Amino acid sequence: MKLLTFAGADDKSRLGMLLADGRVLDVTAAWQAAPHALQDRPAPRDVMEAIALGDPGRAALQEIADAAGKQAQLCLDEDKVRYLPPIPRPPKNVICVGRNYKAHIIEGNLARGRAADDFPKAIELFTKPPTTLTAHKQAVSRHAAHTKLLDYEIELGIVIGKTGKDIDPANAMEHVFGYTVVNDISARDLQVQHGQWFKGKSLDGTCPMGPVVATRDEISQPGNLDLELTVNGEVRQSANTSDLLFDIPSIIAQVSIGFTLQEGDIIATGTPSGVGMALNPPRSLEPGDRICARIEGIGELVTTITE
Amino acid sequence: MKLLTFAGADDKSRLGMLLADGRVLDVTAAWQAAPHALQDRPAPRDVMEAIALGDPGRAALQEIADAAGKQAQLCLDEDKVRYLPPIPRPPKNVICVGRNYKAHIIEGNLARGRAADDFPKAIELFTKPPTTLTAHKQAVSRHAAHTKLLDYEIELGIVIGKTGKDIDPANAMEHVFGYTVVNDISARDLQVQHGQWFKGKSLDGTCPMGPVVATRDEISQPGNLDLELTVNGEVRQSANTSDLLFDIPSIIAQVSIGFTLQEGDIIATGTPSGVGMALNPPRSLEPGDRICARIEGIGELVTTITE
Repeated sequence: MKLLTFAGADDKSRLGMLLADGRVLDVTAAWQAAPHALQDRPAPRDVMEAIALGDPGRAALQEIADAAGKQAQLCLDEDKVRYLPPIPRPPKNVICVGRNYKAHIIEGNLARGRAADDFPKAIELFTKPPTTLTAHKQAVSRHAAHTKLLDYEIELGIVIGKTGKDIDPANAMEHVFGYTVVNDISARDLQVQHGQWFKGKSLDGTCPMGPVVATRDEISQPGNLDLELTVNGEVRQSANTSDLLFDIPSIIAQVSIGFTLQEGDIIATGTPSGVGMALNPPRSLEPGDRICARIEGIGELVTTITE
Repeated sequence: MKLLTFAGADDKSRLGMLLADGRVLDVTAAWQAAPHALQDRPAPRDVMEAIALGDPGRAALQEIADAAGKQAQLCLDEDKVRYLPPIPRPPKNVICVGRNYKAHIIEGNLARGRAADDFPKAIELFTKPPTTLTAHKQAVSRHAAHTKLLDYEIELGIVIGKTGKDIDPANAMEHVFGYTVVNDISARDLQVQHGQWFKGKSLDGTCPMGPVVATRDEISQPGNLDLELTVNGEVRQSANTSDLLFDIPSIIAQVSIGFTLQEGDIIATGTPSGVGMALNPPRSLEPGDRICARIEGIGELVTTITE
């Protein structure tokens, strides 16, 4: 299933499901209209509430899709949907992994005169607050008053579906609800000026996410997904998750050391090479730019840059 | 006013107020019993909900305290109160300022062979997730399986009361709801191993906070407060907020650059010298240790370390 959160006519959030024919099923409306096992529970209104329904919830959503997907009045044209971030208020800041694509690390090491294979021994982690979350098709400010170099970073996002800590890598995939596309937009000069990266990673709106969360069963090989990011149609990043230094089970295991991962937590798994900062000369995002971040099996997240 | 969040007999959170005579007024109960201007609003159940009531809320709380503080049945003995973190679920991770006390920075610079006055030009920021929050008088795990060196850090915590971004230092104090005591417990080896500090700052339970939030009007000179932290009665940290490199208005201004500070956000303002890592030889917190973190005008936050 591909689940999404969108704004209804009353501007309140609703849970949607992207159907195979490209339409979006209004699950919040269909919850009452279609027969399913959890009908006595209140209708979920966003992806977070869908996660909270647990495994029975996933089964109920599938029943609803089978029954209601045929009822045209419960479906919307995808291009008329006003997307919201799938998880509007995660329990924590979005957890982000730093350098994690081998080609990207080697590139950086050579540029700094280090040994090419000088890989991190442990994951680098920082966060982006909920005030950075931006929906599919929404605009992000250039933040020109605050940064000279605003940059993109396509990342595979893991959405946690089952709470746990000290998670064994062998069991880690049980804790995954699904996957989404994250664009970790970064103010490079602020990352450097402020020592730690948080300031440069936390400007308002700089975490586009979506359009959907593809549930775990949709993605048979999360360690073998193509990623591609374009700016105004020009390919800037193109890679495959098979190049991850720390794979998904390893990331979940390392993050959860002494640390409770909760339902709805989001982990952005790092970005491959091709960021604007590494171009010669470096290039910033600028007002009018259109960024498309695509991950195989999930979808394409579109973001425009405004003043 | 000194506000706190505590657990009622039903384990649900309640708003409390520490009275001048040392008792705690059950504000959630008194909200209905005592006359005040906002009686038609639901009773606040934690400090976050008190903040959300705005300035009229503060006036109502004062009316309640004046009327109900004399009614013994609405007051509890302080030593019977089961404290909760004042803001159980802040809108973002706790925002933390790195090196910010001049004596502490000089000490570190000299140890590393740098110029003594090589001060940061901009604040260093990192975060601690809500899963680190621990109440007054509660225990924190030694996390011995995960870290060799668990350390304490007393910090003045700023609680935001008014949303804003790009805040001018001249207006910054208007955004402060109050102040609390934070103990930024840190796993020093994980800070280093993971490059960025987040991993070492985010082990479960490692952010004791409280016991109270002292409202802004209680603290006439936040830039001149004594701080002291003891471990088993031995003074380890002793300083005054007048030694802050970046003062409170400067911190709020810098954090809020392109970044929306929200009601209930918490900023920990950095720690002075005397951490266990800097002792010779370095000393870790160990099971059985009792940490008392006191800040003038706010109170004393007590934490014990367990296995």
